[in-house]
Order: sequence, then structure tokens, then C-alpha cells
Amino acid sequence: MEPFHYADRLQVAIAEKGTPIVVGLDPRPELLPAVLRDGAVASGPESRAQIAARIFEFNQRVIDAVAPIVPAVKPNIAFYECWGAPGIECWERTILHARERGLIVIGDVKRSDMGSTAKAYAAAHLTGPAALDAITVNPYLGGDSLDPFIEAAAANGRGVYVLVKTSNPGSADLQDLPAGGGPVYGRVADLVAARGDRFLGTSGESLVGAVVGATFPAIAAELRERMPNAPFLLPGYGAQGASAQDVLAGFRADGSGGLVNSSRGIIFAYRRHPWATRFTAETWEGAVRAAAEAMRDDLGAAFAGA
Amino acid sequence: MEPFHYADRLQVAIAEKGTPIVVGLDPRPELLPAVLRDGAVASGPESRAQIAARIFEFNQRVIDAVAPIVPAVKPNIAFYECWGAPGIECWERTILHARERGLIVIGDVKRSDMGSTAKAYAAAHLTGPAALDAITVNPYLGGDSLDPFIEAAAANGRGVYVLVKTSNPGSADLQDLPAGGGPVYGRVADLVAARGDRFLGTSGESLVGAVVGATFPAIAAELRERMPNAPFLLPGYGAQGASAQDVLAGFRADGSGGLVNSSRGIIFAYRRHPWATRFTAETWEGAVRAAAEAMRDDLGAAFAGA
Repeated sequence: MEPFHYADRLQVAIAEKGTPIVVGLDPRPELLPAVLRDGAVASGPESRAQIAARIFEFNQRVIDAVAPIVPAVKPNIAFYECWGAPGIECWERTILHARERGLIVIGDVKRSDMGSTAKAYAAAHLTGPAALDAITVNPYLGGDSLDPFIEAAAANGRGVYVLVKTSNPGSADLQDLPAGGGPVYGRVADLVAARGDRFLGTSGESLVGAVVGATFPAIAAELRERMPNAPFLLPGYGAQGASAQDVLAGFRADGSGGLVNSSRGIIFAYRRHPWATRFTAETWEGAVRAAAEAMRDDLGAAFAGA
Repeated sequence: MEPFHYADRLQVAIAEKGTPIVVGLDPRPELLPAVLRDGAVASGPESRAQIAARIFEFNQRVIDAVAPIVPAVKPNIAFYECWGAPGIECWERTILHARERGLIVIGDVKRSDMGSTAKAYAAAHLTGPAALDAITVNPYLGGDSLDPFIEAAAANGRGVYVLVKTSNPGSADLQDLPAGGGPVYGRVADLVAARGDRFLGTSGESLVGAVVGATFPAIAAELRERMPNAPFLLPGYGAQGASAQDVLAGFRADGSGGLVNSSRGIIFAYRRHPWATRFTAETWEGAVRAAAEAMRDDLGAAFAGA
């Protein structure tokens, strides 16, 4: 029987594929392979429904390409929300297709609000037919704003990743501020650990995780100690500059506890070094597979050397 | 000619109505007047499209009731997003209807992300046919995460309200942490002021505003001094406990600079003290009007006494 607890399900999925990769599904119409434009109306701007349909076809084929290789995908809702209601339909169909392919689906929604409003967000994304396996949430409003998400996740076998230290340069502005003996991100980590330790799976990992930028490996190592039971979602590998070696800092000594994200580096690999010379817009799915396999091998070599 | 800059447009709207009220459109199906359920299928659970249709009818009638009294409405997208694509259609139709009635429409979306993802959110909510006049954004990711929103707002005559000090008790967890000589919210205020002062309207107010909970009047007064040119969005009046007197702390001495939110206290007035004894589910629109007028008079008396 499939386990119920999010962290337990995640660990099974990672073990099955033998790599902790999550592929970011951040589709931008202007970067999609031109071959996917064939069905569109030749003249005039595309409608939102046409763009959403094209994005769904792209997502479907990315998912089919990576499903044998990776355990999880992570669509970011900004790239769906910008196409209105058709974009949200595409979002839900993408979730369902990924689930059919046996993938863990993490919704990068970075939501935050309080009370009944946070409950409405949690209902939107952690319950119902197109529920995510986990979502990202923003902690600026404080602990009481996180609880409705955590409670909905616990009741439904889902997870929550709290933004602790993000991968962008500007994350220093607030997150690194010295706040009574340590940076703000450390205080957020304490909130995450305190709340998460009430919701451990049989694996000992919590359903309350943390987003920790792999672009700051020293901080990731510090946060790994501060939140020993939290699953980490680690953005920043590849296009954003973090190496496989940097990424290791977010893992436990036994190689568990992390999920490494790559978005553009995989889904738009056909446009990027080194794949652009070996693949074309017609063979773009081959580039997706090659990039996912290369990332798997790169992480594997780093783990083997650790 | 209508001014282009958000703060200038907002000031015109407030002057026209003579009160700085923004009505929160946070529709919860279980709280809607039963009379709106008449058209729904009698047996079985409602579909998302049916719920969204009922919410739109409610919103339309709330908007028609308050449009002669207040300058602005503020739908919170959580209460639309939870009904999927039909909910987003309802969200857009609500925005369009409010605009037709001459209202400023502030989208309480509390979005946050970085780089091209923040740009996608800004495109979703500050451009296109159902663009908001302004949106709320979460600053946890830092200054570089705010810039795409501010730039899109500046280019399109729109505004951005950055969460600085929110009205919930848990806001203390992060926002009040002592960070090098002052609380975190003060550092966020400095970010808002520094960025906002590059985008002043002819009125001297910026298109970069701040969300400041009226539930903490001493902090609101402090933040008013720290962000002299920022329009404030002040939640917390009424149902959350802040009085008209508390709310004054967020305004300038001349009575400008603030917009006071009330949600449940107005849209669900028919269910609440003191209106429940004078109105029924059949006359709920009368309660909406009466509550909006009472709030206008309450704020007016406080301003007159100030």
C-alpha cells in the first residue's frame, strides 16, 4: 500500500528513480519549440485559450519525457495564472497528467494569507481533484498564517515547503537581516522545525519542509542542522549557478532529505548549451531527456564522491 | 482627463466619495444569503461553476450597493482561486463589473516570486483586460522580487501595496523581530520608501504603497512617518477589532494617505450585529448599504474630532 504521509511518499518516489530531481514546469510561450505552434492560427495574436493549449501539449510531452527519470515535477502557477481561466485549466490538467505518470507534483505557488483566507488557499491547492502533493508558502505573515496550510496538508497526506532562504540575490534584504543573535532565515527555520516536528512520517521526515536556495551552500548546511527533519526543496542548480557539490549541503549525510530543482535547464534544454548543438526544435524532447539524465549523473557523481 | 498615475487616480476617487473606504470582496459560499441559492440545483453538491456563478451574482449586487458610497473594492483572490477556472472567470468578471461602476479595484493577491516569474505574476494582474488598479505583494524575497511588480505598475498606471505590518497576531513572529536597531517591518518600510520615491504622482504620493494593520495603531503612526509618500492600505477595522480612532494613525495630518478596509463587516452585514435585527437574508443589500454608510460616518466623525 502506498504510504499516506507526504514525506514517506516522497522518499518512496525518490528511491524508485534513484535521484532526487524535481523538474520545474515554468512554460513561457516565447521559448516553446516552434514546432508546437503548428496548430495555432497563423495570423493575429493567439488567444489565451490557444496559448494554454500549446502550453499543455508542451507540458504533457515534457512530463512523458522525464517521468521515467525523475520522481517529481514542480509547476510554478505564475506561468499559468497569467493566461486567466484557460491557464488555470491547463494548470489542473498538467497536475493530473503528471500524477497519471506516477510523479509527485509540487505546486510552486508561494501563497500567504491569514485565517479563513489561508484556509481558502489551502483548500484550493491541497484538496480536491487537482490537489498538489505539496505546495510552497511564504512565511512573512508569521506562524498563524502557516497553520491552515499545515493542517490541511496533514489531513490530506500532503506537504508544505516554507520559503526560508530563497535563491535570488535580493533574498539578503530581509532574510539575512540580523535578528537577535542570528539572521531572520534562522528564525523562520525555527518556526518550521517547531511546527514540523509535530507531523513526522514513519521515515522520521516531516510534511513541513523548507525552500533553501542551493546558491548559498554554507547557509544550506547551517539550515540542514537547524531543521533536521524537514525535507528541503533546493532551487538554484544549473541555470542559476549552483553546482552539484553546492547542492549536497542541503542533504543529510546519508544522502536523504533533499529535492533539487531544475527548470529552464531541462525543459528548454534544446535552446541551451551544451544541448543546442545536438538537438533542434524538432528533437526538443530528446534534449529534455538528455538534460535530465545528465543532471541525474552529475548529482550521482557528487553523492558518490561525498 | 483622468490622471494616469495610480495615486492620483486614487485621490480623485476618494475625494469624489468623500470617504477612504475599500470594501473587501471575500465571498464565502456558506455565508451568502440563502436567497441567492434559489437558482441552484436543489439536490446534490453544487459544481464549481455553479458556486462561481452564485458568487458573481452576490459580488455584482454588493458592488452596485456600495458603488455610490465608497471609492474602492478589494477582492481577495483566495476566495476565487479555490473554485478553479470558473473561480478565475468570476474573479475577472467581478473586476470588470466594479470598474464599470467607477470603482478602484485592488487585487489582494499577496504574490511573491523572483525574476521572470514575478514578471509573469505582474503581467497576470497589472496588464490585460482584467488588470487590477493595484495589487498587494509579499516582500519576503527582497527588493529584487518587488521591482518587476513596481515596473509593471509604473508602466501601466497601476499601484503596488507591499505587506509591511499585517493585522494578524502572528505578524509579530517575523515582522517585529529586532533587526539591527529596529524591527524587520521598519526595514521593509525603508525598502518601500526608497523604491516608491522614484515613482511619485503629481499629488506627491507614490504608486508603491504599504499594507499596515490598523490593529497596531502605534506601529501605523511610526510607519506613517517612515513612508511619508506611500499610500497605506489599512486592514483590521471592525470585525478584526480596530476602531476609527485606531485607523487615523495611518493617515497624514491632513486626512490623506490611507484606505481603510472592511470585508465581512460590510458584505455579510445582514448576519452581523447590529444589522441582523434590522435586515434579513431577503433585504441583505440594505444591510450592505447601511453598514457602508455607518462606516463612512464613523470614520468621518473620527476625522472631524482629530
